Amino acid sequence: MRTLKVELGERSYPIYIGRNLLQHTGAMSAECGISRKSRHLIVTDESVAPHYLKKVKDSLESAGFQVAAHIVPSGESSKSLNVYEEVMTTAISSKLDRNSSVFALGGGVVGDLAGFVAASYMRGITFVQLPTTILAHDSSVGGKVAVNHPLAKNMIGAFHQPVMVLYDVDTLTTLPAREVSSGLAEMVKHGLIMDREFAYWCLEHASDLLALDPESLTYGLERGCAIKAEVVSQDEREGGLRAILNLGHTIGHAVEAVGGYGRFLHGEAIAIGMAGSAMLAESLGRADLYHETVAMLKALHLPVSLPSDVSVDQVMEAMQHDKKFSEGQMVFIIPEQIGKVSIVKDVPVAAVRAVVERLQKEGENG
Amino acid sequence: MRTLKVELGERSYPIYIGRNLLQHTGAMSAECGISRKSRHLIVTDESVAPHYLKKVKDSLESAGFQVAAHIVPSGESSKSLNVYEEVMTTAISSKLDRNSSVFALGGGVVGDLAGFVAASYMRGITFVQLPTTILAHDSSVGGKVAVNHPLAKNMIGAFHQPVMVLYDVDTLTTLPAREVSSGLAEMVKHGLIMDREFAYWCLEHASDLLALDPESLTYGLERGCAIKAEVVSQDEREGGLRAILNLGHTIGHAVEAVGGYGRFLHGEAIAIGMAGSAMLAESLGRADLYHETVAMLKALHLPVSLPSDVSVDQVMEAMQHDKKFSEGQMVFIIPEQIGKVSIVKDVPVAAVRAVVERLQKEGENG
Repeated sequence: MRTLKVELGERSYPIYIGRNLLQHTGAMSAECGISRKSRHLIVTDESVAPHYLKKVKDSLESAGFQVAAHIVPSGESSKSLNVYEEVMTTAISSKLDRNSSVFALGGGVVGDLAGFVAASYMRGITFVQLPTTILAHDSSVGGKVAVNHPLAKNMIGAFHQPVMVLYDVDTLTTLPAREVSSGLAEMVKHGLIMDREFAYWCLEHASDLLALDPESLTYGLERGCAIKAEVVSQDEREGGLRAILNLGHTIGHAVEAVGGYGRFLHGEAIAIGMAGSAMLAESLGRADLYHETVAMLKALHLPVSLPSDVSVDQVMEAMQHDKKFSEGQMVFIIPEQIGKVSIVKDVPVAAVRAVVERLQKEGENG
Repeated sequence: MRTLKVELGERSYPIYIGRNLLQHTGAMSAECGISRKSRHLIVTDESVAPHYLKKVKDSLESAGFQVAAHIVPSGESSKSLNVYEEVMTTAISSKLDRNSSVFALGGGVVGDLAGFVAASYMRGITFVQLPTTILAHDSSVGGKVAVNHPLAKNMIGAFHQPVMVLYDVDTLTTLPAREVSSGLAEMVKHGLIMDREFAYWCLEHASDLLALDPESLTYGLERGCAIKAEVVSQDEREGGLRAILNLGHTIGHAVEAVGGYGRFLHGEAIAIGMAGSAMLAESLGRADLYHETVAMLKALHLPVSLPSDVSVDQVMEAMQHDKKFSEGQMVFIIPEQIGKVSIVKDVPVAAVRAVVERLQKEGENG
């Protein structure tokens, strides 16, 4: 087991990464001070529940905790205010109090949803993350929790740090191939934004990672979490630096929205967005990294272009609602070299539109 | 104009109390650093909008701010997730960004709802309170914001401090008599919990207060806000001391819930709750303050008993969901003398039930 600490003053917390961790959920929860007098809630989804819910519940109950569970449908559609209200109903009916905890057992969707429940139930209770996807190595670090509004993604949320993240890599073996690649998109992104060596490591170990080799996976997750934790420690509430984590996300979120939050997985959409950012760097005359970036993404079996039936107008429209629109200007994270990016404010909308059009043309050509 | 500072470190903020303040909203917003580049949202309700929305909007626009407005129905029913989502839709459609602000123009309902929107829109934006009720002198200090869940009040929320409170006492002249008394319930509560002299001042000036005499009102609001600010400064997130502000609220919230959040105004319900707390102090053998407390509440034209058609069982059931149920024990704020209370954990449920029954009997007798 590897231990990583996210340094956030009084909100610091540990991330444990290793094999066979879920069966120790109870003991580790006790160790981090979770109350045995209050009731707790596990939030998970229909794909994860059959594999791991019993294991987690048994572990917590054997350690003397009282737990209820709420199972939501799988997929981004569960990050809605409706599902959020249903989880709240379960929390109230299960008599959770101010000393209760919410355990998120699942991927990014479950983590974001359960995290926002924990952030807002009785104005905030304890939150524990039990990620079961590669993608969650990103979302489980940093305390950003949210649900979607029909008009835009992650519009309703909070900053709410977990007290502990238990990352059991054995849960990753049941992931479908597309989910694996989607998760690796965030992993390589962490290399692309601030660790050149790690970006190349991801390229070199692409086939090991796709094959879920435990050793490569543990190293990749640890390094990915560590990079994210370093950024978040310096800028918890996204005042400045933290924005670099959004590489590929402005276009990516718009692509997800236009696809109805189902057609593209999050990592697929941001892979397209990262290819777009490299194009933008080129067209702004800042760096010539497009081919190298695309090669890295393709090695991880990720898409790098827009299908021809996706409307460029709709993508541009969806981008208008993005949180990265600050005071009417368009902010973009632009690669400068592999392992280094800049936050560029005031990117011309016309340049972005040209990139979206080129992303689609690449799709038609490829 | 009187100025009061709520001391919360980097989240400290000023409360301005005086006549004719709303027409200076724009200038004062500029002074406290609100961005002219971003768009802002005024949230208000159907009762307040016809009187003051234009004044506030004009003042902000003359000062160079771009503002949209969202008008919700009057009353507690607007503190729902549905209305919350509607306000979010307006915020997104109006293109609010991370540097935008939400202005709450209204009473406690508008403040709580708009405050939770501000707390969670894009994970938190700037919040300004423009209270138009006496009750709001309580809710606008301390940063507690929330909406209700059908099963329990204020279950979904956050701690989110405003950057400024502008309290224009001229807005109070249009309040209906029941609303005036309801607001005075929180005012006298602030005396009852920690300022004996102020509690008696409220009793002596009851008729001035009910008649909305500006001088008495300004003093009462200032003192009420100051007491609340003092408690909140010491315990922002309700770790301990802050709980004393809940005098009368455990029974009060249950009474509101059973009345469907409409039959009893908040202050009426907590007046009944404060009468109940005094009874409880008596039955636990701690203090003999029932008659004195009731006299103070009656002087402010507040109810002190439960109507005979309110079900005691339902009140007891509603109390089970209260946030003040901690780890299965019942926590009550119990008066020790006028101006002093204790936090008593582990109050027997049977003693509480006896009090609720007696509150109803008093209603039948009176």
